[in-house]
Amino acid sequence: MKKYRVGILGATGTVGQRFVQLLQGHPQFEIAALAASERSVGKTYAEACAWKLTGDIPENVSGLEVQPIEPPLDCDIVFSGLPSKVAREAEAAFARAGYPVVTNSSCYRMDEDIPLLIPEINADHLGLIPIQQEKRGFGTGFIVTNPNCAICSFAPPLAALHRKFGVEAVMVTTMQSISGAGYPGVSAMDIADNVLPYIAGEEPKVETEAQKILGSFTGQAVEKADFVVSAQCFRVDVIDGHTVSVRVKLAKPSTLEDVIEAMREFPTLDLYSSPEHFIEVLEEPSRPQPRLDRDRGNGMTVTVGRLFPDNIFDYRFVGLSHNTVRGAAGATILNAELLISKGLI
Amino acid sequence: MKKYRVGILGATGTVGQRFVQLLQGHPQFEIAALAASERSVGKTYAEACAWKLTGDIPENVSGLEVQPIEPPLDCDIVFSGLPSKVAREAEAAFARAGYPVVTNSSCYRMDEDIPLLIPEINADHLGLIPIQQEKRGFGTGFIVTNPNCAICSFAPPLAALHRKFGVEAVMVTTMQSISGAGYPGVSAMDIADNVLPYIAGEEPKVETEAQKILGSFTGQAVEKADFVVSAQCFRVDVIDGHTVSVRVKLAKPSTLEDVIEAMREFPTLDLYSSPEHFIEVLEEPSRPQPRLDRDRGNGMTVTVGRLFPDNIFDYRFVGLSHNTVRGAAGATILNAELLISKGLI
Amino acid sequence: MKKYRVGILGATGTVGQRFVQLLQGHPQFEIAALAASERSVGKTYAEACAWKLTGDIPENVSGLEVQPIEPPLDCDIVFSGLPSKVAREAEAAFARAGYPVVTNSSCYRMDEDIPLLIPEINADHLGLIPIQQEKRGFGTGFIVTNPNCAICSFAPPLAALHRKFGVEAVMVTTMQSISGAGYPGVSAMDIADNVLPYIAGEEPKVETEAQKILGSFTGQAVEKADFVVSAQCFRVDVIDGHTVSVRVKLAKPSTLEDVIEAMREFPTLDLYSSPEHFIEVLEEPSRPQPRLDRDRGNGMTVTVGRLFPDNIFDYRFVGLSHNTVRGAAGATILNAELLISKGLI
Amino acid sequence: MKKYRVGILGATGTVGQRFVQLLQGHPQFEIAALAASERSVGKTYAEACAWKLTGDIPENVSGLEVQPIEPPLDCDIVFSGLPSKVAREAEAAFARAGYPVVTNSSCYRMDEDIPLLIPEINADHLGLIPIQQEKRGFGTGFIVTNPNCAICSFAPPLAALHRKFGVEAVMVTTMQSISGAGYPGVSAMDIADNVLPYIAGEEPKVETEAQKILGSFTGQAVEKADFVVSAQCFRVDVIDGHTVSVRVKLAKPSTLEDVIEAMREFPTLDLYSSPEHFIEVLEEPSRPQPRLDRDRGNGMTVTVGRLFPDNIFDYRFVGLSHNTVRGAAGATILNAELLISKGLI
Repeated sequence: MKKYRVGILGATGTVGQRFVQLLQGHPQFEIAALAASERSVGKTYAEACAWKLTGDIPENVSGLEVQPIEPPLDCDIVFSGLPSKVAREAEAAFARAGYPVVTNSSCYRMDEDIPLLIPEINADHLGLIPIQQEKRGFGTGFIVTNPNCAICSFAPPLAALHRKFGVEAVMVTTMQSISGAGYPGVSAMDIADNVLPYIAGEEPKVETEAQKILGSFTGQAVEKADFVVSAQCFRVDVIDGHTVSVRVKLAKPSTLEDVIEAMREFPTLDLYSSPEHFIEVLEEPSRPQPRLDRDRGNGMTVTVGRLFPDNIFDYRFVGLSHNTVRGAAGATILNAELLISKGLI
Repeated sequence: MKKYRVGILGATGTVGQRFVQLLQGHPQFEIAALAASERSVGKTYAEACAWKLTGDIPENVSGLEVQPIEPPLDCDIVFSGLPSKVAREAEAAFARAGYPVVTNSSCYRMDEDIPLLIPEINADHLGLIPIQQEKRGFGTGFIVTNPNCAICSFAPPLAALHRKFGVEAVMVTTMQSISGAGYPGVSAMDIADNVLPYIAGEEPKVETEAQKILGSFTGQAVEKADFVVSAQCFRVDVIDGHTVSVRVKLAKPSTLEDVIEAMREFPTLDLYSSPEHFIEVLEEPSRPQPRLDRDRGNGMTVTVGRLFPDNIFDYRFVGLSHNTVRGAAGATILNAELLISKGLI
Repeated sequence: MKKYRVGILGATGTVGQRFVQLLQGHPQFEIAALAASERSVGKTYAEACAWKLTGDIPENVSGLEVQPIEPPLDCDIVFSGLPSKVAREAEAAFARAGYPVVTNSSCYRMDEDIPLLIPEINADHLGLIPIQQEKRGFGTGFIVTNPNCAICSFAPPLAALHRKFGVEAVMVTTMQSISGAGYPGVSAMDIADNVLPYIAGEEPKVETEAQKILGSFTGQAVEKADFVVSAQCFRVDVIDGHTVSVRVKLAKPSTLEDVIEAMREFPTLDLYSSPEHFIEVLEEPSRPQPRLDRDRGNGMTVTVGRLFPDNIFDYRFVGLSHNTVRGAAGATILNAELLISKGLI
Repeated sequence: MKKYRVGILGATGTVGQRFVQLLQGHPQFEIAALAASERSVGKTYAEACAWKLTGDIPENVSGLEVQPIEPPLDCDIVFSGLPSKVAREAEAAFARAGYPVVTNSSCYRMDEDIPLLIPEINADHLGLIPIQQEKRGFGTGFIVTNPNCAICSFAPPLAALHRKFGVEAVMVTTMQSISGAGYPGVSAMDIADNVLPYIAGEEPKVETEAQKILGSFTGQAVEKADFVVSAQCFRVDVIDGHTVSVRVKLAKPSTLEDVIEAMREFPTLDLYSSPEHFIEVLEEPSRPQPRLDRDRGNGMTVTVGRLFPDNIFDYRFVGLSHNTVRGAAGATILNAELLISKGLI
């Protein structure tokens, strides 16, 4: 099988390191180029990167020379883990130069002509690509994005409910892990014996992205789903895994059994990184827990627990996903696998 | 000034130790008797107690001999930090023997004739005492209780809103500290790098106690406030301080300024343990935080932050209080101070 | 290849769960019987066990019925993760009944006729088995043990030095993880924002086991190595992985290069659970770290770093190993693999 | 009583904040001027400072305008919490301008003519001041320093032993808290579920400062004590309090009773910040612990526990002190109190 040659933007960062880790042994991709900010350019990846994942830097990349974040890069597809500030310009430059850009950055997520994808939910939003290419003059290049990490802990079960029963309102309170802030990210002095009630810019993202993801592609545009989301976002002293407390108001009545079934039967995909179960619903009273459940499905399964009728809205539950896998690097890779399966790269 | 002689039930436990600590230097109380379970009886407090607070066991109690948990105890008033299982019978026995019993236990909180007090909010519920004495044949003894620790992080700001604007519905998600589970309580293996989505029995307490506290005393009974509470309760790796995310739906419209003012101007009391500010509203974006704010007002102030309009309900905010002070031992002591100020002991 | 049928004693505990996890997919062993204390007997493993490892209980064991801890068990070999108190009698009963018993318990480790094994170091101590069988009347059964978890973080590099240069004295200070105390083990209230300077019974074990492991088998007995060990043992808030600070005084002079080479070239074995590198020596200044390095070699590699000349003794270094894999369940399994390779089962 | 007017250099940093906190209510000092780096100059302290201690910024300083770090400052004495890089030049400038400079910075500690003080141990080293003034042309200004925070956890008990029995060698392994690295300091991603085996520049400091502190002032110079120190330094996930494991080889034999007595009877001073007990020796097996013992003597007491004969050196013990109080800001303030008591300011 032909392997696509991948260039990674922001290769030395938290998401970039996960790309490198998750692409080891991947049957469809091989890492061909690494790009990072100026102070890394010209160094080998091993020299430039403060590797923070378990084990050593994989041998096949440790000696690669870090390139600047600009086209051309010697690769077939670009994966981006760039911070938003630099992503907007750099990713457009790559798209304009003809590269497919799959990105974890937040800057393009809410642009009307950019697909914001969770492949199991809204693969048809890929229909935006030709519209985007025409509007932005991208030629054969394009940009697709994946959602904010916190979204991934509740949008999948929400999609299951939305599809079956309709959703009117969602209240979420997130307990997000420290890896979500990158490295060095959160100071140990801020999080030890503590909870932080504020993550800059997070609540608006959580309150707007789900409606686009669960929206309908009309052939011309994505019509957003018309429920409203209220989000309060917290940082807790957990390394990986965002836990979300959710109450949801449905458009039509449903039994608890139907709700559980809607989640459990939500189909997964036949892509390499797709987990066997997209959504797992646990019935043990004290699950999901980030340390015990974040790695289900190699970090790509979304886990739901404590699913009960609520006494204000219809149902309450707790959602959990691995924020740097399902919520970041793994999501981007899954998007790339989807593009291949649809013949778009 | 005459000092009341205090007997502490459950003196060796987490709440009992806080009683001992908080009563050091108290102008109205002196510790006269300590009672604990059988395996401690006959030992000195220093021998029986695995002291978990900073510093040493205070000298004035370390040599006291631990008594059994049954009347008589040589004291004027009984403070109870007993676990619910043993509290119901033991506390009734003391009340029947003529002691005023101020307790942190949960077992009597929702009984119709037992005051469930936050003195700044519902001191008039003390009117239940004669009703209780008559109904239960307590003679001159009686029982008063304070609420669950998680309640104390949101009932005070809620009371401020309820009094001014009326409250229709409240959604809370709690992030509770490990000290709330006592000692040994939570296993380190369960909470390290983790969040627990379940605290046994907690959600029903949080969903029912606030309505009684904010209820009206009719002269005969407490009529519960008629809002509904939805609670999801989590344990996080914080030593002290329960953080609560809150959305509230009001009965009548109000501006943000009015809401802030209602909280800030909610009156404190002139009791020894009353803080200068019952409720503090912080405007810094990243507050309150348990480690930085739990000790405000010597642990008796309730801190509110991130108070904003919500896009589903009317307002959202984050509440915080020190769970073993305002939420447990300090609450019990404040109740006792209230009883003295009202001439009830 | 024939699979040996394994019975696990103490199957529901921390070490027992690791046995179950590590034996998944093992080419030489299959789990045939699970035994645990009375309150678990008769339940399925899923019912009896509070599973604390990531993911779910493996399907091939979740339905097995838990047996009492006494022979007979329907198996070829017994793996024991029993607490010391019950292990002494139970393990002897199984050995007497003809079972090979490989155990992680501490109770037999220092008995003269019982091999205390790290297979890469002292496989020849298996010569004690016939002596043991005769002395204890075990018939064809026998007991072999593996060392205390803290030993495994420094005995391997020490063995490398001892073999090449001789060792006269070793000072170790351990920083041990919470999983070393089992479950529930350490209270979160004791370890949050804290270090514990005491682990009951640990320092004497650490000060005596290494001399036996590095001792010589004379054909009749193990003559202990004659260096002296000083140990101070601490508990830190780390989930898995014991970090040990070591200073060592050698019997003959050696260069740093020779010391590094001695460690790096210490041979590994050709057993299924043997890591590719028995000892890895890292040169990055801030390694080893438990979170990043405990899983090297699937938890079976011992990592060394900060290896420098000392200004009192000859050399100093930091050793690290995974306490529930290399230091417990993995060690026991490796012992069993060694027994098979030597034709002893 | 006349209050000395204090100027604080590095006022917004971790040590600077502790100065501000500890000087509240101090009978001899009032804060008159705050200086910090350029980006803070001209702002009020409240604007410039990310306050990380409990409660609010004290009112008497929150409105003070931050000054540049250069003379003149309107004050009688300068307290410095500057990072070493900028301290060397700035502190000399203040001394040259006639200010007494008491500093926590490391840059001058090992200079021959600069006193490195723990007032209870070596107040006579103040005799270096005239020598320093002459050599450096400081006029009436001068610099005195306090030791590295890790030193303070073992130098006091060591001084007690050195004075009575002589010390020949000391092996220490430190477990240092995150506050020792300042703010933001240690990344949460580095310390969660982890131990760091390396603190840049720390081991050499710990291996050299104690000999100067315990040295003798000859009238002309400090002759260093001639024992040797070996240090391995670790960072652990503790907020405040450095725990140190120590083995010590004495020059003459002594009983355990004599060793305990030497520590307990080591005299404290009659200064405002001196604790009632300079050294406390605890006999409970599991003490000292940073969370429970760091605040003894308002953070100025050094706690010793697990004091036993060692089987290589003579004795082993665990030392603990509060690294930002006894080990930093409190030490500097105590030095200033000593200067007043000796008539040097």
